[in-house]
Amino acid sequence: MTTDTPTQLGMIGLGRMGANLARRLLRDGHRCVVYDLNESAVKELEDEGAVAAGSLGDLVAKLERPRAAWLMLPAAVVQPTLDQLTELLDPDDTVIDGGNSYYRDDIIRAAQLAPRRIHYLDCGTSGGVWGLERGYCLMIGGETEPVARLDPIFRTIAPGAGAAEPTPSRRANGTAPDGYLHCGPSGAGHFVKMVHNGIEYGMMGAIAEGLSIIEHADAGHRKHTADAETAPLREPEFYRYEIDIGQVAEVWRRGSVVGSWLVDLTADALARSPKLEEFTGRVSDSGEGRWTVLAAVDEGVPAAVITTALTERFQSRGLGEFADKLLSAMRSEFGGHAEKRSRS
Amino acid sequence: MTTDTPTQLGMIGLGRMGANLARRLLRDGHRCVVYDLNESAVKELEDEGAVAAGSLGDLVAKLERPRAAWLMLPAAVVQPTLDQLTELLDPDDTVIDGGNSYYRDDIIRAAQLAPRRIHYLDCGTSGGVWGLERGYCLMIGGETEPVARLDPIFRTIAPGAGAAEPTPSRRANGTAPDGYLHCGPSGAGHFVKMVHNGIEYGMMGAIAEGLSIIEHADAGHRKHTADAETAPLREPEFYRYEIDIGQVAEVWRRGSVVGSWLVDLTADALARSPKLEEFTGRVSDSGEGRWTVLAAVDEGVPAAVITTALTERFQSRGLGEFADKLLSAMRSEFGGHAEKRSRS
Amino acid sequence: MTTDTPTQLGMIGLGRMGANLARRLLRDGHRCVVYDLNESAVKELEDEGAVAAGSLGDLVAKLERPRAAWLMLPAAVVQPTLDQLTELLDPDDTVIDGGNSYYRDDIIRAAQLAPRRIHYLDCGTSGGVWGLERGYCLMIGGETEPVARLDPIFRTIAPGAGAAEPTPSRRANGTAPDGYLHCGPSGAGHFVKMVHNGIEYGMMGAIAEGLSIIEHADAGHRKHTADAETAPLREPEFYRYEIDIGQVAEVWRRGSVVGSWLVDLTADALARSPKLEEFTGRVSDSGEGRWTVLAAVDEGVPAAVITTALTERFQSRGLGEFADKLLSAMRSEFGGHAEKRSRS
Amino acid sequence: MTTDTPTQLGMIGLGRMGANLARRLLRDGHRCVVYDLNESAVKELEDEGAVAAGSLGDLVAKLERPRAAWLMLPAAVVQPTLDQLTELLDPDDTVIDGGNSYYRDDIIRAAQLAPRRIHYLDCGTSGGVWGLERGYCLMIGGETEPVARLDPIFRTIAPGAGAAEPTPSRRANGTAPDGYLHCGPSGAGHFVKMVHNGIEYGMMGAIAEGLSIIEHADAGHRKHTADAETAPLREPEFYRYEIDIGQVAEVWRRGSVVGSWLVDLTADALARSPKLEEFTGRVSDSGEGRWTVLAAVDEGVPAAVITTALTERFQSRGLGEFADKLLSAMRSEFGGHAEKRSRS
Repeated sequence: MTTDTPTQLGMIGLGRMGANLARRLLRDGHRCVVYDLNESAVKELEDEGAVAAGSLGDLVAKLERPRAAWLMLPAAVVQPTLDQLTELLDPDDTVIDGGNSYYRDDIIRAAQLAPRRIHYLDCGTSGGVWGLERGYCLMIGGETEPVARLDPIFRTIAPGAGAAEPTPSRRANGTAPDGYLHCGPSGAGHFVKMVHNGIEYGMMGAIAEGLSIIEHADAGHRKHTADAETAPLREPEFYRYEIDIGQVAEVWRRGSVVGSWLVDLTADALARSPKLEEFTGRVSDSGEGRWTVLAAVDEGVPAAVITTALTERFQSRGLGEFADKLLSAMRSEFGGHAEKRSRS
Repeated sequence: MTTDTPTQLGMIGLGRMGANLARRLLRDGHRCVVYDLNESAVKELEDEGAVAAGSLGDLVAKLERPRAAWLMLPAAVVQPTLDQLTELLDPDDTVIDGGNSYYRDDIIRAAQLAPRRIHYLDCGTSGGVWGLERGYCLMIGGETEPVARLDPIFRTIAPGAGAAEPTPSRRANGTAPDGYLHCGPSGAGHFVKMVHNGIEYGMMGAIAEGLSIIEHADAGHRKHTADAETAPLREPEFYRYEIDIGQVAEVWRRGSVVGSWLVDLTADALARSPKLEEFTGRVSDSGEGRWTVLAAVDEGVPAAVITTALTERFQSRGLGEFADKLLSAMRSEFGGHAEKRSRS
Repeated sequence: MTTDTPTQLGMIGLGRMGANLARRLLRDGHRCVVYDLNESAVKELEDEGAVAAGSLGDLVAKLERPRAAWLMLPAAVVQPTLDQLTELLDPDDTVIDGGNSYYRDDIIRAAQLAPRRIHYLDCGTSGGVWGLERGYCLMIGGETEPVARLDPIFRTIAPGAGAAEPTPSRRANGTAPDGYLHCGPSGAGHFVKMVHNGIEYGMMGAIAEGLSIIEHADAGHRKHTADAETAPLREPEFYRYEIDIGQVAEVWRRGSVVGSWLVDLTADALARSPKLEEFTGRVSDSGEGRWTVLAAVDEGVPAAVITTALTERFQSRGLGEFADKLLSAMRSEFGGHAEKRSRS
Repeated sequence: MTTDTPTQLGMIGLGRMGANLARRLLRDGHRCVVYDLNESAVKELEDEGAVAAGSLGDLVAKLERPRAAWLMLPAAVVQPTLDQLTELLDPDDTVIDGGNSYYRDDIIRAAQLAPRRIHYLDCGTSGGVWGLERGYCLMIGGETEPVARLDPIFRTIAPGAGAAEPTPSRRANGTAPDGYLHCGPSGAGHFVKMVHNGIEYGMMGAIAEGLSIIEHADAGHRKHTADAETAPLREPEFYRYEIDIGQVAEVWRRGSVVGSWLVDLTADALARSPKLEEFTGRVSDSGEGRWTVLAAVDEGVPAAVITTALTERFQSRGLGEFADKLLSAMRSEFGGHAEKRSRS
């Protein structure tokens, strides 16, 4: 992945993602000026070859013009940092927001910076904790010129063409086979990343549900009481399997249609913890899934699978409790059904 | 509701439903022979004018031929009772299963009884604890002749035409406007009742979700922490309502498009318990909802709303926990996301 | 429904809803000044006792202060009409938006009118073409004082307590049993109406799916070809019913748990057109269903049933076609599956 | 993939899958006796080194005892072929059903063959048209002894460990890392394959929906008419992207969380046909998706994502039309809404 044109980047935010992005750039010969409120994070990267900055102003001062500064921050911190940073930048400098901002904010921010001739790029960055080695998939939005100028940076961060077999029917064009793509004007990068995460919700939901169905294929072994409130299993003889879902996830990794990185990760998780006892099953959602659903509704595109996956996450956190109480109340009203306390 | 042709019926099973069916028949001048394993239930109805039976054989002996015996039993008890009863019956006698049996069992049972010339009717019975006063909606399956013969019984049990305004475009025909209907051959009654309950699940789910959305319209008042794991509410100023959903359910009872018995019951439940603290929200499903989904899948009919309502009930009982743990495990693998413990 | 305090109202927009609201007020002794771009609509109501207005200015001039003007207009026309109207009004006058505006617009509009001391009420109005006789269910948002002042108007428009049996557990309080409710500050009325419509989507979806399952209970009679692309019906002997769903809808109107105005209407539709040949099944959505889903996502309330019902409407209009093509393309890639042209 | 212990197999059914399984075995040095009703298919494989059989009896005669015969047939043909074949086999012979049979049939068939001491294995086989080169993922059910005996066959057909990186946390055990797995007793193989396909439905649905949301990100460019029946796009300025989804699918192939074989195939399909004009979007379902949903309902496992994906396929084939007509009919009843003919 060695690049012919080493260049420079300021990295603001040295959490897991930001630090690894800087490392990947350093390893490929680029110059990185790094800054974080956490001084030990700065020190650690300085030891790995980065130029340490003690403040936003210091970072700006240590970059040559036209500068490029990459924000890798929690969504809620982006705006105040950006406000402070833009006061320090000059015309033709570029800010890249690599976090999970809402694409609508990108449109608004780019418009606000335009009169000062500061470029604003939004860059959806996928890869998680594995990106340092595997590279990060980059979905970029913004003006064409600064995107082109920063091509060596994106190329280094991205996985590169070798990370997958070539697509058989594809003619060579563009950077997508290298794992980064200029998707369109401001917001387009985060829009594509947002939908990417929505798809991720759906794929994860499908995998989790399916493995749960296999895990419960022993339902015919369990005792069920006969009462008016619980449907007994009609044909228990067809549910008498004890199948090791860790082995199942592993076998699906090769040759099957569901083969995917998410199945790889599931196989790894189950290899470590076959019964997943350390998890409670409260599944967070960090915005992109919700925004994907909002976009689907606005566009009038039926997205039942993705929407359902989001709803399952809400359910997992107990957010359906009040509606469930209403159901119990209605049942109590019309049938005198007392709630059952044990699982069935 | 006084009938011109009083007749006789044996009632087997004097739970809430069976006892009230017998009462409704007695009040309208029919002769009822009643039996239950619980002797005090038998005694209670004897005091109200029924003929008490001490055993199935006694019940059969006290009915004139051709006999008619109505089973009002939990699904799991129907088959053994039926086996015992049919040994005691004569050709041209009729058994009515008024419970919530699976319609496929009706088809099988009717075929088994046919060689002995015993009639078997399946009768879906809706009305809950309110049926004694309101009457029961009856959905009947089986041969035409015994259905016709028992018409005075069905007519008395059903609500009668006065229970609702006439349907404007309807020409007078059949018994449906009186609240009972011969739906078709064996199983047709329970098939229609099964789907009725599936619809009930969907309607209940819609009402419960909607009221929950209104209950949570104060979301903008709540504090949210800014972190990478929780999507903050973007425009809290639009979620600052404290709306009394008990009043809302009440106002919808008159003139609105969602006006329905379920909304009536919801209004009553909320009048009694505005915050529903006595419910935990574990919602049972007693078979018909599941069977409705199985039928939809077999027929290839998309029934997303009903299916979703069933799934919500599963979720309410914690049956999605293993899948949720898998989701948390996957998230932990690719993003190092630790689960959040508190609700968000 | 005769009121003790007849009062006056200006009605702007004399479509089906607006004209019938005016009629209901006139019949109860209120004075109505009416206006519409369509002069014949104005003339028709003048013949029924209303005061005709030739322009917005004329309408304002013919109302005594403090005035009250009710807008009953398509959502897209509300804002320009309101802009024009408020130029003509005086402090302490009230505008009521009785249409299906987005509740967020109510919040914005009320804030814009506040400096001029013009009151703005939002009033969700349910009842459709039947409201003239049945009355309209009213869900009102805005300041307390103008809501109280207009109580005689709301009381006349609403169905009144006689439209349903009293809720057994309810203590007498408020106006909800009369069919109108002050739900909260600006936007609260349309918020409740929005969710009402979301619930309506879910209830309609459940009823439609259920009746479709019954309609297709003859699936076992149909021929299926055996090929690798279509799952044959495994047990056709359980799907051999020809059930008249018009009769089913009718029987459910009395005593059943799904009894509701929507089932009443369904029974009427099927009485008129048993096979519904005149409909193509392209189901519109007019905003409230989408907004309900957006609110549920914002609040983090799982609303799977309502969301699914919305998605089904999108599907009914062919909006899923591109995603379906992608599915066919994927299947073609991995399995060489050619698409099937006929239904199965 | 060269094996140390070449062995023999009879292959019955030389369609796309069966022929390629035979080829894969031949290439690895195994002896294959092949049979199909289509003589040219037999001839073609004979030319590639297989032993041709002219009938089931001939195939049986040409195999050494204990024999092993693999059925690769459409689901509907399995039973009659099996009936004929078992008449010809001897004790300790083995039949493998490699097709997509319902796992319940496996349980029944194995029980029927047990008295004759003929082994019956069910083997879910995933890989599609790509399996010849990539290998097939095998999910096997049945007795331990014949599974062990046929290990060299399974090993050759499977992709082998080299097809994916090792799972980091996994200790070496079993054959799953080689791409084949003995899942449990009879039916367990097809049960796991069934759920695999259910997951596939969900993953495909998520990908298709997501790409459709991106494809429609230009919704703000389209004209919308303002009427009471269509919700206008509220903020068109946020939907003005023209994003090339073929490039998006390609970029997701490297480094992203949604990276998967299905995304690889989607990228290939879009490289060939960017607008997918040759597809109509009628998506078949061949049984496993339905059966997965039935299992989830029987087990009481919420599988909303997979179920929704199945429902979308039903919708894509117009199977929701009757329910949609009912919705239109209801809307017409309560609101006088005429259906809209054009898409919106």
